[in-house]
Amino acid sequence: MPIQAISWSPSGAVRIIDQRALPDAEITRDLESAEAVAEAIRTLQVRGAPLIGIAAAMGLVAAMREHRTLMRTPFLERLQAHATLLAVSRPTAVNLRWALDRMLRTAESTAGEGSDLWERLRAEAGAIWEEDRAMCRHIGEHGLSILSDGGSVLTHCNTGALATGGIGTALAPIYLAHEQGRRVHVYVDETRPLLQGSRLTAWELLHAGISCTLITDATAATLMRQAKVDTVLVGADRICANGDFANKIGTYGLAVLARHHGVPFYCAAPWSTVDASLAEGDLIPIEQRAPTEVTMMAGRPIAPDGVPALNPAFDVTPARYVTGFITDRGIVQPPFTD
Amino acid sequence: MPIQAISWSPSGAVRIIDQRALPDAEITRDLESAEAVAEAIRTLQVRGAPLIGIAAAMGLVAAMREHRTLMRTPFLERLQAHATLLAVSRPTAVNLRWALDRMLRTAESTAGEGSDLWERLRAEAGAIWEEDRAMCRHIGEHGLSILSDGGSVLTHCNTGALATGGIGTALAPIYLAHEQGRRVHVYVDETRPLLQGSRLTAWELLHAGISCTLITDATAATLMRQAKVDTVLVGADRICANGDFANKIGTYGLAVLARHHGVPFYCAAPWSTVDASLAEGDLIPIEQRAPTEVTMMAGRPIAPDGVPALNPAFDVTPARYVTGFITDRGIVQPPFTD
Repeated sequence: MPIQAISWSPSGAVRIIDQRALPDAEITRDLESAEAVAEAIRTLQVRGAPLIGIAAAMGLVAAMREHRTLMRTPFLERLQAHATLLAVSRPTAVNLRWALDRMLRTAESTAGEGSDLWERLRAEAGAIWEEDRAMCRHIGEHGLSILSDGGSVLTHCNTGALATGGIGTALAPIYLAHEQGRRVHVYVDETRPLLQGSRLTAWELLHAGISCTLITDATAATLMRQAKVDTVLVGADRICANGDFANKIGTYGLAVLARHHGVPFYCAAPWSTVDASLAEGDLIPIEQRAPTEVTMMAGRPIAPDGVPALNPAFDVTPARYVTGFITDRGIVQPPFTD
Repeated sequence: MPIQAISWSPSGAVRIIDQRALPDAEITRDLESAEAVAEAIRTLQVRGAPLIGIAAAMGLVAAMREHRTLMRTPFLERLQAHATLLAVSRPTAVNLRWALDRMLRTAESTAGEGSDLWERLRAEAGAIWEEDRAMCRHIGEHGLSILSDGGSVLTHCNTGALATGGIGTALAPIYLAHEQGRRVHVYVDETRPLLQGSRLTAWELLHAGISCTLITDATAATLMRQAKVDTVLVGADRICANGDFANKIGTYGLAVLARHHGVPFYCAAPWSTVDASLAEGDLIPIEQRAPTEVTMMAGRPIAPDGVPALNPAFDVTPARYVTGFITDRGIVQPPFTD
């Protein structure tokens, strides 16, 4: 069974698995405030574009609990302030802003005072989560057609149950294939610097009983040359109107390598990842994270003191490298409109 | 000034810098026996194809010190046993066997008893080291022509002073360009799993005052797409007659990416790296190292218990991806004969 990455605590806080601690320890945290949720997103306790959106929506609900008794206008002002705080916690994923905008629009279009709005927001956050779960399943169903029995898939970063409210995006077809008894083997890129592949993807695949092999990122090219990879399947943090998309750093290189070796390269993502307001990939803001993520490991230096390091969290893959986009609306091709 | 990676101790032992401890600590070890040198090679205290050859030759001399009083035949038998022990310490680099064979041939072709042979071996190890130093310089001089003032080079693994008896192979042109006052910037692949790029290359470049930026291996593709890389420059552990070559895992992917982006891709190596007895790359034995190098870091697990991992130390890059081979004999093209 896939793991469940988010839930409500009995008291109404946002309950998460702290993904920084995996696979060493399975630590659950209850986040009571917008600040706590923003901090959890910023520090990657919660990550994965769809899950970030759900966490932010649920975070608004948890944060507004104590303001339920407010009148309409101060309630909306407070809600807006919390949403602004959450919106800046990470810059690249579009789902975060999409979920927050949806929550704000819902509140504004609901009649009544704070308590009415809060009840409606709680239902809306639930709907976002529920839709995400259904979305994962739809991606999985549409993606099943690209997986052959006995085939092998190479994936990068974590796009599974730990990245969503359901069974994942790029991992969803794999979970469904496994559920149906098809044999599928997954090569898992470790995904430096934060090792979401080794720490999270390998962990959740093992947990679900799916056959996998961990590799360093630089091993993928040779596996393709040896014809050991039938399909490359990655997620996306933002997809532009023309189909260019941002995903974890390393994705672009895999796309070039897949093209070179004649390996199909699929991007799996919910439709909410499409940002049709951006014409092309070079307009996507790319989060630059701290160089210490590259130069330190487990609190120990792995590079000499004072060496400059680049640490872009994402890269942009031009649409021309993508065999198809596996979305909850089917396997589609650009251009995309909202 | 580049660092000096190997020397004789005052007592005649092989003095090395323990490269496992860098950049945390600069630990010097004096290796007194063939076993100690073989262990140092196997555990990567000493690494880099040229340096391994020098260390093995010097190791024979250190180990045979106490057997100098033997008569010719038992001396040669003992020498052969030590050489056999050293030869199996790592399987891929051809320089190791090349240096050992040269030492054995030298002993056999020298007249006299143990003490005569030992003196000759000591001189021969010194010659191998001296030739390596000159070889590095020649590679540097030939390679200078490919580096423009203000240009940037991307490199993988460590091919510098820490990998040779001199100023390195792929780093030699960079050291010489810097010595001549040319501005050159080096992008250093961290080189998972053992991080020779971040731990060793970045360390020795900083030490020499050469401008560099550390990146994760999966960042190289995006730098090429952004036209930030003018040249890719890597080393080699074994070059076949047709020009296919083995080098650190990740090299092949860089070659494909360089070709795709129109970036020149050079392989720099001493002529002794050529193994003309192998027609093509798929015949090169590829060392498979322990999966724990991928799943553990600094003694801590970074992947879930029990996950299978692949850890090939090298990959093979077909000759057709190589713009030129920078050797001590000039910039050359295959086919190669010894």
